Amino acid sequence: MDTDSRAKAQRFAELHREGCFLLPNAWDVGSARILEAAGFPAVATTSAGVAFSLGRPDHDFFAEQPPEDRVDRETMLGRVREIAGGLAVPLSADLEDGYGESPETVATTVARTVAAGAAGGNIEDFTGDRTRPLYDHKLSVERVRAARETLAADGEPFVLVGRTDALLVGGTLDEAVRRANAYLEAGADCAFVPGAADAETIGRLVREIDGPLNVVMGLTGNTLSLDDLRALGVRRVTVGGSIARAMYRRLLDAARELADQGTFSYATDQLSQTELNDLFRQGSRQG
Amino acid sequence: MDTDSRAKAQRFAELHREGCFLLPNAWDVGSARILEAAGFPAVATTSAGVAFSLGRPDHDFFAEQPPEDRVDRETMLGRVREIAGGLAVPLSADLEDGYGESPETVATTVARTVAAGAAGGNIEDFTGDRTRPLYDHKLSVERVRAARETLAADGEPFVLVGRTDALLVGGTLDEAVRRANAYLEAGADCAFVPGAADAETIGRLVREIDGPLNVVMGLTGNTLSLDDLRALGVRRVTVGGSIARAMYRRLLDAARELADQGTFSYATDQLSQTELNDLFRQGSRQG
Repeated sequence: MDTDSRAKAQRFAELHREGCFLLPNAWDVGSARILEAAGFPAVATTSAGVAFSLGRPDHDFFAEQPPEDRVDRETMLGRVREIAGGLAVPLSADLEDGYGESPETVATTVARTVAAGAAGGNIEDFTGDRTRPLYDHKLSVERVRAARETLAADGEPFVLVGRTDALLVGGTLDEAVRRANAYLEAGADCAFVPGAADAETIGRLVREIDGPLNVVMGLTGNTLSLDDLRALGVRRVTVGGSIARAMYRRLLDAARELADQGTFSYATDQLSQTELNDLFRQGSRQG
Repeated sequence: MDTDSRAKAQRFAELHREGCFLLPNAWDVGSARILEAAGFPAVATTSAGVAFSLGRPDHDFFAEQPPEDRVDRETMLGRVREIAGGLAVPLSADLEDGYGESPETVATTVARTVAAGAAGGNIEDFTGDRTRPLYDHKLSVERVRAARETLAADGEPFVLVGRTDALLVGGTLDEAVRRANAYLEAGADCAFVPGAADAETIGRLVREIDGPLNVVMGLTGNTLSLDDLRALGVRRVTVGGSIARAMYRRLLDAARELADQGTFSYATDQLSQTELNDLFRQGSRQG
């Protein structure tokens, strides 16, 4: 890790010490730099957004089968490297399940993510396989511990997030809490529980989880604001693939207007070439 | 060129023989596959969209200086290869000025574009330098001729487009016509004159240019429809970076809502994860 990356990772770690911050999710350098230009102190990646930009499917918690042709570790870390290098602010990487089952694989993934210039990353316990949706509790904990031990051995600052998808696969709140606490105890700096969207559930997670909590917003039906989440005691708020999916809505609408009507009204609401060039020139790009 | 790429290029060439078709512009595999799924018989790239996705500025015809850190040929052709490989329909590449001044460089660029799996490509005469905005007439013609000779020597089908930016840099309609005709005579299969947006100008271009004409729509203020353009005798209609810029409008709006208000209403209008996964699974990906 070079000096600049280390400084970014230290700044990123500090953001997790108190208060509540929004960490929006990008999928390529362009989207990341626009989020940076909007003033966010850090940016995350979304594995869904990266997959879509490559024309590939992402995990779908409602599907029977994991998608074929998922994005592999090499490709994902290549994108992480590109984005981290294009930003002056720290980048946190969505590392899915660490790209393998074994703790050794997860540790390697995290070490390579540090080398790619990221300041943090999430490891989740969803297997992608509906017949056994979560890695079992003990293995999941070992996966987080292996990542932490690698980071400790390297001595590099890195915000390790233990993510449990218990709620997404129909598990109980108790199981989500148990797993989140076990990941924190194994060395995660922050726990992430997607699928918690209402004040009661989130309030209980904050009370019962012994460390910083990340929740994800941006699904249709979410009604809480950042102020609400701050008041509930949430430390960090991500938006998953929601910005990407909102943009794909716009793309599909434009494509259908072009294909079905042969008109161009989608184009009446666009950024100008000059505005975009200015946005991309402004970025400080210290990576 | 493999059999599949050759078949695509032949199909693409046939689209230019009669009628009028819409050729929308993508910047990554995901955007290209959504356009393909909407039913278009071919897709083009937009150098602006590719640059923006990489967080870099594109040409700006109103700027004094060409942008530093423009996308280089290697990067652009890498993206063309990715997109072409992800599509079942033909892909036409925006090759800007051929990534160099000399006819030899342009020829090499076109040969490498064929090798990347594209079915066609545009070579423009804008230098990027406001002090001498267009390559001079004779050199511009030689650049197109060199590209055609390389293609003829290889015997590969490829729709070569000669683009003149005369109108964009304040030149006359006469100059645009003169250049377009000279490029067609030098071996371009199609002439592209950006900056023509009204029926009178476009009608005159159709009448005075001795070959298929491409015009670009999608700038604010364009009012013609595909039917209007067909009636005027236009052969091919592209949309430049307009779809990308419309999506960036949405991204910037979402970023500002998140940063300024801490709310998530941008997310009420998004494609679902399942819809996107289905779109990306549907693609035939025969590349």
